[in-house]
Amino acid sequence: MNRPADSAAVRRTNLSRVLRYIEAHGPCARTEIAAATGLVHASVTALIADLIGRGLVEEAGATVSGGRGRPRRLLRIVPGRVWTVVVQVNRWDIRLRVADLAGSAVHIERAPHRAPAGEPEPVAEAIAQVVARAVAQADGAHLGRVVIAVPGPVIGGLVAAAIPFGWGATDLAALVAEHLPDLPCPVELVNDANMAALAEYHALAVAGTSHPDTVAYIRADVGVGGGLLIGGRIHSGSHGMAGEIGHVPVSLDGPPCKCGSRGCLVTYLGLQALTAAAGLGAFTPGQDAAAVRAELDHRLRSGDPRALAALHDAGHALGAAMLAVASAADAGEAILGGYLADWAPWLTPGIDTRLTGRRTAMSAVGFAVSVGILGADATLHGAVHVGRDRILDDPTAVPTGDSGAPATADCAPPVSIGH
Amino acid sequence: MNRPADSAAVRRTNLSRVLRYIEAHGPCARTEIAAATGLVHASVTALIADLIGRGLVEEAGATVSGGRGRPRRLLRIVPGRVWTVVVQVNRWDIRLRVADLAGSAVHIERAPHRAPAGEPEPVAEAIAQVVARAVAQADGAHLGRVVIAVPGPVIGGLVAAAIPFGWGATDLAALVAEHLPDLPCPVELVNDANMAALAEYHALAVAGTSHPDTVAYIRADVGVGGGLLIGGRIHSGSHGMAGEIGHVPVSLDGPPCKCGSRGCLVTYLGLQALTAAAGLGAFTPGQDAAAVRAELDHRLRSGDPRALAALHDAGHALGAAMLAVASAADAGEAILGGYLADWAPWLTPGIDTRLTGRRTAMSAVGFAVSVGILGADATLHGAVHVGRDRILDDPTAVPTGDSGAPATADCAPPVSIGH
Repeated sequence: MNRPADSAAVRRTNLSRVLRYIEAHGPCARTEIAAATGLVHASVTALIADLIGRGLVEEAGATVSGGRGRPRRLLRIVPGRVWTVVVQVNRWDIRLRVADLAGSAVHIERAPHRAPAGEPEPVAEAIAQVVARAVAQADGAHLGRVVIAVPGPVIGGLVAAAIPFGWGATDLAALVAEHLPDLPCPVELVNDANMAALAEYHALAVAGTSHPDTVAYIRADVGVGGGLLIGGRIHSGSHGMAGEIGHVPVSLDGPPCKCGSRGCLVTYLGLQALTAAAGLGAFTPGQDAAAVRAELDHRLRSGDPRALAALHDAGHALGAAMLAVASAADAGEAILGGYLADWAPWLTPGIDTRLTGRRTAMSAVGFAVSVGILGADATLHGAVHVGRDRILDDPTAVPTGDSGAPATADCAPPVSIGH
Repeated sequence: MNRPADSAAVRRTNLSRVLRYIEAHGPCARTEIAAATGLVHASVTALIADLIGRGLVEEAGATVSGGRGRPRRLLRIVPGRVWTVVVQVNRWDIRLRVADLAGSAVHIERAPHRAPAGEPEPVAEAIAQVVARAVAQADGAHLGRVVIAVPGPVIGGLVAAAIPFGWGATDLAALVAEHLPDLPCPVELVNDANMAALAEYHALAVAGTSHPDTVAYIRADVGVGGGLLIGGRIHSGSHGMAGEIGHVPVSLDGPPCKCGSRGCLVTYLGLQALTAAAGLGAFTPGQDAAAVRAELDHRLRSGDPRALAALHDAGHALGAAMLAVASAADAGEAILGGYLADWAPWLTPGIDTRLTGRRTAMSAVGFAVSVGILGADATLHGAVHVGRDRILDDPTAVPTGDSGAPATADCAPPVSIGH
C-alpha cells in the first residue's frame, strides 16, 4: 500500500490479472474474464488488445454461441512468445531447461563442466556457452529471463558463499552476462534449494495437498538446505538466506559445524554424519556422493541394523528442527526433498518420536510432513516458475510487435540486469 | 495482486495513502500531498473532501504563502475523531488504554479482577465493565475498535489455550460483546506478546534502530513468548502462533515441557528454570512472580555467583534459539523484552558465547541483539498501533458526518465482529 496507485501501476496489475487468468483458464471469452477479474468489459477489451499487441495472447479460431447474441471469440495465450532459460549449476555439471510461457520444456541440455574449484570465471564461461546455444534457437520468442540456480545463498544478487565451489561473494550473473553481450534479457541468480521448495510446493498442491500458510522445505543431498514458504512464496529474510534448516541447532553441545556453530541439524542429518553413524566409514567431500548415497540406500533396503538406527536417530534430530520452525515461524508443514524424500520411510519413526508429545498436548496446532515428488528436477521446475512469474507479473516487459503475432526476429531491447 | 483492482478498492487505498501522509507529516498542503503520493491534484482534492466529510481531517487555520499565487490552506488530522480502546488482561488484572488517532492516551485505567481460573465468563464481564466506562466518555468520537490482548495464542479469532487462565478455546471477543450490546465497533483479540513485538519494533525504529527484514521479538515474564516480524508486520503463520520462541527446542534430551515436547527454550530460560538454577528454590505457578523476579534481580545486582551462572547458562540456550530463528527464517535481529530486557547485561555473555562462532565464520550475515525500551507498556502500545492501523488502512470505516466536524453524538452504525 506504500506505492502510488498510479495509472501505469494499475494497468500493469490489470494486464497481469488478465494474462494470468487466460494462462490458467483459457481458451476463454472476454465476458468470462470480466466476471472473474471484476474488471469492466471495456477495460478487459482494451487490456486484451494490449496483450494481443505484445503477442502474448491470441484469438482462438473456435467460437461458442452464448445461446443468443453474437458468437464469442475465445482467447488463449501464445506459449511460444516468451522463453525462460533456466540453469542449475553444481560442482560437476550444468543442467539447462528452456520453457515456454506454459511452462513446457522446449529445450533440455546437461553438460559436465571441468571448472576447477575456487574460480568462478570458468564456471561462468561454461554456463554462458550452454545458454548461448539455447538462445540461438529462440526464433521469434522473446527471452524473458535467464535464471541461474546455485548451490549457495544468494545475498543482494551475489552468490554469497558457494561452499561446493570454494568461492567467496561472486557476481555470477554479471560474469555470465559478460560472455553474452547480445543477451536481450536480465540474468537472475537464485538459490537452488529455494527453487526446489517452490516447485515441490506447487506440485503437491496440483496433486491435491492443501498447504498451510507457512511451509518449511527441507532437502539433503550432501549438506542440508531448504526454503521457507509463506503464502506460496519464498520468504527471503534479512539476507536472502531464510530456510537454511540445516543450520538450526538441535543440541547445546553437539558436533562442531562448518558454519562456525555446533549441534546444527546437518551434523546429525548430513551425508557425512549418516555414513559415519551407519558404519560406512568417513565420507570426505572429495568422494562421489552419489555412490555413497547408493551404498547407504542399499543397506537401508536390505535392513542393515546400523543403517536403520542411523536414520532413526537422524529423524529424531530432524523432528527437533521441525519443532523449531513450527514454534518460531508457525510452519504447519514440512516438505522433504533429496535423500530425505528417498529415505522418508526410515526417517519417519524418529520424526514421529520427536513430534508426538507436542502433537498430543497441542492438538489444535497441526503439523504435517509431506514427501516431495519431483526428485532431481525440482530446482529446474522452480526456476522456470520464477522466470514465468516475471512475465505474468509484468506483461509490459514484453515489447509490442507489428501484427500481434510472434516476431520473426528478436525484438526485445537490451535490458539491464536487475530490471 | 489477486483482488480486483476495482474503483472502490483503489479509492480506499488512496484515501488511506492521503490520511496516512497527513497523519505523519501534517499540517501540510494539498500540493505537498500530491507530490508525495504520486496522485494527481484533482484526486487529492476529492480525497481530502471525503476525509473532511468523515471528520478525519480539517483545514488548519494557518496558511502559508507559496511565494506567489494563492495562499495554501494546510491540512491536519482531527485526532479526537476516532478512539481505539485497548485492553490487556492477565491472571490478576485488566489494563485499559484509550488512544486517539494520533496514538495519544485519552484515558487510562487499571483494575484488578477476581475472576477464578478456568472460567472465561467472569473475565469477559470484568473486561466489559472497564470498556463500558471508557466508551461512555467517547463524546463525539467514533469508536474504531476494541482490541483485547490476551496471554495466549489467538487462532481463528479465538483464545486458543490461555494457560494462565486454564481455558480451552474461547471466543472471548463474543463473550465481551454480549455484555456490550450497544458497542458500535468490532472487538478484536490479539496475542499480547505479538503486540509488544510490534510496539518495540516501532519504538526502536523511532529511536534510530534500523531493522532488517525479519526480526524475532523474545519476551519473558514467567514463560517465554514472542513474535516474528516481517517487513515491520507480525507474521501470523499457519495458526496465528508464529513467534513462540519459548518452544524452540535447544537440546535433544532436555527437560520435559508443558507443550508436550522436551528441551524447549523455556525449560532453560523460564522463571521456574532460572529460580531453580539460581538456588532460589522451586517456583510454583501460584507464587507471586513479581516478587520472585525482584529477588532474582536483587541477587544479580549484588553479584550472587549462582544467579550470575544461571543467567549465563540461560543466555547460552537463548543464543541457540536465536541461531534457530536466524537459520530458519533469516531473522537478522532479536529484540529482548520482559525480564530478558531487564537482565540483558547478565544474559549477553552467554548469548555471545553461542553466537560468536557463526558470526566469525559467516561475517556477511549480521545478527543484532537489541533491548526493548517500552517495559510493561509494550503490549498496550502495540494494541493501539493495531487499532489505529484499522482506521488508517480503511478510512471509509468512519461514517460521514453532517458538517465534517466531529459528530456530537455517536454516529457509527453497529458493525459486526470480524468486520
